[in-house]
Amino acid sequence: MPWITAHYRVESSADEIEAFAQTLALEQSVEVPLAAVRDGWIAEHIVGKVRSIAPRADGAFDVAIALATATTGWDVAQTINMLFGNASLHAAVQLADVELPLSLVTAFPRPRFGIAGLRARTGVVAGPLACVALKPQGMPPRELAKLYRLFAQAGVDVVKDDHGIADQSYSRFAERVAAVQQVADEVRRATGRAPLYAPSLVGSPVALSERLRIVRDEGVSMVLIAPALIGMPVFAELIMKLDVPVLAHPAYTGATRVAAPLLLGKFFRLLGADATIFPSFGGRFAFDRKMCGAIATAARAPWHDVAATLPVPAGGMTVERVPELVDFYGPDTMLLIGGSILAADDVAARARAFANAVKGAFR
Amino acid sequence: MPWITAHYRVESSADEIEAFAQTLALEQSVEVPLAAVRDGWIAEHIVGKVRSIAPRADGAFDVAIALATATTGWDVAQTINMLFGNASLHAAVQLADVELPLSLVTAFPRPRFGIAGLRARTGVVAGPLACVALKPQGMPPRELAKLYRLFAQAGVDVVKDDHGIADQSYSRFAERVAAVQQVADEVRRATGRAPLYAPSLVGSPVALSERLRIVRDEGVSMVLIAPALIGMPVFAELIMKLDVPVLAHPAYTGATRVAAPLLLGKFFRLLGADATIFPSFGGRFAFDRKMCGAIATAARAPWHDVAATLPVPAGGMTVERVPELVDFYGPDTMLLIGGSILAADDVAARARAFANAVKGAFR
Repeated sequence: MPWITAHYRVESSADEIEAFAQTLALEQSVEVPLAAVRDGWIAEHIVGKVRSIAPRADGAFDVAIALATATTGWDVAQTINMLFGNASLHAAVQLADVELPLSLVTAFPRPRFGIAGLRARTGVVAGPLACVALKPQGMPPRELAKLYRLFAQAGVDVVKDDHGIADQSYSRFAERVAAVQQVADEVRRATGRAPLYAPSLVGSPVALSERLRIVRDEGVSMVLIAPALIGMPVFAELIMKLDVPVLAHPAYTGATRVAAPLLLGKFFRLLGADATIFPSFGGRFAFDRKMCGAIATAARAPWHDVAATLPVPAGGMTVERVPELVDFYGPDTMLLIGGSILAADDVAARARAFANAVKGAFR
Repeated sequence: MPWITAHYRVESSADEIEAFAQTLALEQSVEVPLAAVRDGWIAEHIVGKVRSIAPRADGAFDVAIALATATTGWDVAQTINMLFGNASLHAAVQLADVELPLSLVTAFPRPRFGIAGLRARTGVVAGPLACVALKPQGMPPRELAKLYRLFAQAGVDVVKDDHGIADQSYSRFAERVAAVQQVADEVRRATGRAPLYAPSLVGSPVALSERLRIVRDEGVSMVLIAPALIGMPVFAELIMKLDVPVLAHPAYTGATRVAAPLLLGKFFRLLGADATIFPSFGGRFAFDRKMCGAIATAARAPWHDVAATLPVPAGGMTVERVPELVDFYGPDTMLLIGGSILAADDVAARARAFANAVKGAFR
């Protein structure tokens, strides 16, 4: 059976890196000293093997370790455990990338819609997409629905809940989703087209089951989920119960310890995100161009039979930057702007300018 | 309604810290610029407020921010979201600690057994407890059961699965738990006392439901769960369905970005861990004495009506270090030694030496 190859970035002296790599291979497989492995079959088929150690330009080392695919039990939680369970506790170790055999890839949900499906559902056959957020939290459902209408008239493609909007006393999920979706349905009947509305699904599994029912009953056409908040295994199971595209949110990913391209790109894609939000360069987070490019690549690059996930750069973007962003990310991209539109004196005009900028940026 | 106070460790220049703190308060509440908050009620009751900024000895700043309790919706996932959802993406920000109002604390499961319950179930009325691990993974159920018997004869108090043992082809959960628990029952019938056996519950929610049934059917007396692997909200819901003590494992916590005392101590305790494993100083992880002391304190210190969680230092401990560890952690502690016992030439003798050292260390 083909093995997994896990790539770690390890800070270590040149003297100690070989021993460290060997320790890491044990930690992420049998979690005992080699002396405690008394069985030849285990030593051969279960113990992790150091495949290569190479110095990096930044002074750290790239360590490639082969991990036995069988140790994952073909389960999401257990796969994460084998890749970075205990190693996450070593400050000197980052999980940088992973190569999975096809048999394991096909055990995960993977995007059911992907970029092609999102284009079909939004009607944006070419060029980048435009996404905005309903916020600030604290607004009652009818106000959020009004904001949706304003954004729809502006011509954006997707309207998502702010990730902070959940099921609070001032905006119950059932009431809010019904109110916004009703406006979406009205707009669609009147104009033949309405932005997809993606309410935020955040909560415990029991609460999520109930909200899933509401999503279905109201005919919602997309959802927003933060896998790190609800748990990646729950995310994967939810995907299998949803028949609409899923937009992944990076909340609580603490993305610097697991490489962001791997977590927000590959992992969320493997689990089934059709689109994935990440903090873009030049915004209010410190991700640089190289990091953002790597995330977009991880989301879109050909990978076995896995559908492409739509990159969604966000986090302090402005309308003025749309051409630059489209130039950088290319057409298979959805731009997400929230606060800077909502802070404008004329929110409607600003939203329209955003939608037009996105449509005009790609020729 | 009383507010939450979240404490962040922020790396910033003295010139910029006030503006950064204000941005953080917005990020973790309304996630828009203040100009976009047009409603007075939201500005007063929902927007986060910077309560204090103080320089730290390490050159960073302590920033205390009041967050509206209502924004949590009294839900686990959403509470984490409000505390550290987007802020986790800022490399310069660490969630250091949190003060929760009683109304929110009582919305969480909290330990149902805690230290007192674990003492009652193990019969260790005073002094520290001894815990060992079944490993390496790859061993079939009958071999793991034999190892359990050896550890039982050695006189340890708890025998846990290695956290890497899940439901793999070479050791199915159902078969393994039945095999080990059968030996535990035999030992108890023969001697009147047997170590609690804590199998590892790791997997997706559907798989966990099935394993929960097995845990009940087999009369298992404790379980091991890694909240960060299965997701903290799932962990909280599982707790409510379990009627045995829960031992929390730190796998995948990447504990340096959320302060370890908060995540492994307070959070896991709040969610209902009766005992919590963490890497001790002097082992194979880089946690120092101060960090370990802070984790133990977070687990045990009086906190509203929340039962105390048993600290379980682990990660490369040796029998020789038992007196030092007991001296440091005190009697309300369970020592966990795995690899160094299993690597010994005479595993049984080493395990007995461990149990005796633990029993003898506290007078």
